[in-house]
Amino acid sequence: MSSVQDFKQVPHKLLVIPGPIEVSDEVLFANAHPSMSHVSLEFVPVFGDCIRMMREVLYTKDAQPFLIAGSGTLGWDQVAANLVEPGENALVLHSGYFGDSFEECLQTYGANVDQIKAEIGAAVSQSEIEKALESKKYKVLTFTHVDTSTAVLSDAKAIAETVKRVSPETLVVMDGVCAVASEEIQMDEWGIDVVLTAPQKGLGTPPGLSIVLASQKAIKVFESRSTPVTSYYASWKKWLPVMKAYENGSAAYFATPPVNLICAFHASLSAITKSSPSLADRFKLHQEASKRIKAAATELGLKQLPLEPSLASNGMTALYFPDGVSGADLLPALLQRGVVVAGGLHTSIKDKYFRIGHMGISVVDPQRGDIDKIISSLRESLAEVKACHKTQ
Amino acid sequence: MSSVQDFKQVPHKLLVIPGPIEVSDEVLFANAHPSMSHVSLEFVPVFGDCIRMMREVLYTKDAQPFLIAGSGTLGWDQVAANLVEPGENALVLHSGYFGDSFEECLQTYGANVDQIKAEIGAAVSQSEIEKALESKKYKVLTFTHVDTSTAVLSDAKAIAETVKRVSPETLVVMDGVCAVASEEIQMDEWGIDVVLTAPQKGLGTPPGLSIVLASQKAIKVFESRSTPVTSYYASWKKWLPVMKAYENGSAAYFATPPVNLICAFHASLSAITKSSPSLADRFKLHQEASKRIKAAATELGLKQLPLEPSLASNGMTALYFPDGVSGADLLPALLQRGVVVAGGLHTSIKDKYFRIGHMGISVVDPQRGDIDKIISSLRESLAEVKACHKTQ
Repeated sequence: MSSVQDFKQVPHKLLVIPGPIEVSDEVLFANAHPSMSHVSLEFVPVFGDCIRMMREVLYTKDAQPFLIAGSGTLGWDQVAANLVEPGENALVLHSGYFGDSFEECLQTYGANVDQIKAEIGAAVSQSEIEKALESKKYKVLTFTHVDTSTAVLSDAKAIAETVKRVSPETLVVMDGVCAVASEEIQMDEWGIDVVLTAPQKGLGTPPGLSIVLASQKAIKVFESRSTPVTSYYASWKKWLPVMKAYENGSAAYFATPPVNLICAFHASLSAITKSSPSLADRFKLHQEASKRIKAAATELGLKQLPLEPSLASNGMTALYFPDGVSGADLLPALLQRGVVVAGGLHTSIKDKYFRIGHMGISVVDPQRGDIDKIISSLRESLAEVKACHKTQ
Repeated sequence: MSSVQDFKQVPHKLLVIPGPIEVSDEVLFANAHPSMSHVSLEFVPVFGDCIRMMREVLYTKDAQPFLIAGSGTLGWDQVAANLVEPGENALVLHSGYFGDSFEECLQTYGANVDQIKAEIGAAVSQSEIEKALESKKYKVLTFTHVDTSTAVLSDAKAIAETVKRVSPETLVVMDGVCAVASEEIQMDEWGIDVVLTAPQKGLGTPPGLSIVLASQKAIKVFESRSTPVTSYYASWKKWLPVMKAYENGSAAYFATPPVNLICAFHASLSAITKSSPSLADRFKLHQEASKRIKAAATELGLKQLPLEPSLASNGMTALYFPDGVSGADLLPALLQRGVVVAGGLHTSIKDKYFRIGHMGISVVDPQRGDIDKIISSLRESLAEVKACHKTQ
């Protein structure tokens, strides 16, 4: 008989890509929960708790969470199909690969999209945003809080302030896939209307869920659409009654929720919102771990993609390979030390850099020693690769 | 340290709703796999195997599988957004609740939908299908192989034959959510163009995946669209290269796959396609278990929703409550005996019947004694409810 006390995941390499990340034994054990009916008395409060705990993570009193089987990408469809009507304008801030994807998704559902593109390693400036908002009326502005392809952190608070000042009707939409639970996000106080994310990064759960929180202002915009929603599976018309029912303690059906994954998500959200460290301390720990890794990288002569420290995310680090070292050298050397990092993703410089994720239990559980292991393995691997090159 | 040998799921009530169903310890243990990169050398062949094994389950040589994080419902969006262009005609055969949903989904993406509705407990006749196909040119015909709301089994082979004879260009689309791996489906031989399904029924895996197989004919229709695909997340333009890459042994990225669930799916598909019983025997075992449950129900005076034995599915049974017995009496009595069945779902008769699922390990592993337990609990519960009514 297995119990949560005696369940230990099998030994494996340390997974420090920018998602999926290492998850705890408790979360994996919950993912192995015996089958449960999606409309049962046991499951309804688990789902309801996840909805409530997501509000805590984003410091919002009344935003409406949507937890739907899918991936983070489905969050873009939710925004494009529910909040933007065909022919309306959308402004996409581009700080990496994911800006292009969000643009394409919005266009698929009929939006007219303008994009402001920052140079690689930078975020779009407030003055550029202001200029664009003054030139045209936009239904939504979207930005990527942390672009997983560049590790660039956008200033969410400043973006929301600019929008509220220049074009208060425009909805502020944050792609928070690589930011939620590793970066502080004050949804209500800053005035973010939509946060979309996924469970496999800061939220410490296996992938398979699209998580979206929409402010009441966004819900009102959705409810006053003049044209029908242009997706079936991503339609809030279908999901809103379901989410409300589960939160209020009863089941409702549109499509079967990913029951086991919701159990796993519940275990992780409980650790994040109800145990030590506090949410505020969790963000501090991410900042500290990030500083340690970035300082070690600098010491090793590695240059970050983000052009300034204030533009660098706290949950991941993107580093150019030093001269004479390629991914084909460094990544296998790290792998041999049991450390799995990620290659590049930003199309134009894909082979010139690599990415390290430092989120969740790797950061908040110091006993694991994950940050130390990342730094020492990086040091050893670089030395090995360089030594090897010298002898060639 | 947990290993697959010593992992045993915690004791729980017997879940015999028509999905999610009971899943094996092996499958749950795989769902608790340590985090793995979705582009790693370890994960790529697991995903590739799932693609290949799904072909085996449906007896198809070259249909293209799509395995996407989502629910069964997302399969409708895949059909509606990729195969039907706005303004084209679709014919929906209605044998229960899910015919209405598929119709609504097709309409969302701009199809003109005609529906042929069978009476409750029946399937649409071949002559009605023939008449409709002669009256108009349809891009797709959709039917529900087993409608989870009525337990009605449609004659997939006959439907496909009628379409090929009367309107050979029309694509035959099967909603196989409650049929795949519990009913025999000869995709190639019968000429089914699309089968869409989900993992939590006959496929014996937790929910969270949309599984679609499309014939090469369907793929050609998709590739020769004259208008853009009307969904982003459900677009085969995005997913086709990803599925081909994983099958060919390399990773590709559009959206993060549900890594752990794919591991669980791999464990279940391996049991279904590579161990005892054989796939053919698996279908026979489902037929036998179904016969036993239906015979016991008849003996207890319970009437089935399907009007004839040939219309009754082999993976589930839908039974009217006998006179004087309601769901509020019978379902809790079954629950007290540790057996979880489902209430009604078909809108117009929702409170008049209940549903029992008998799929997967509950059927193919006789040592579990699940079928005996269902029958004895049903007998005891009915007796208890009736005795209780007499004394009132």
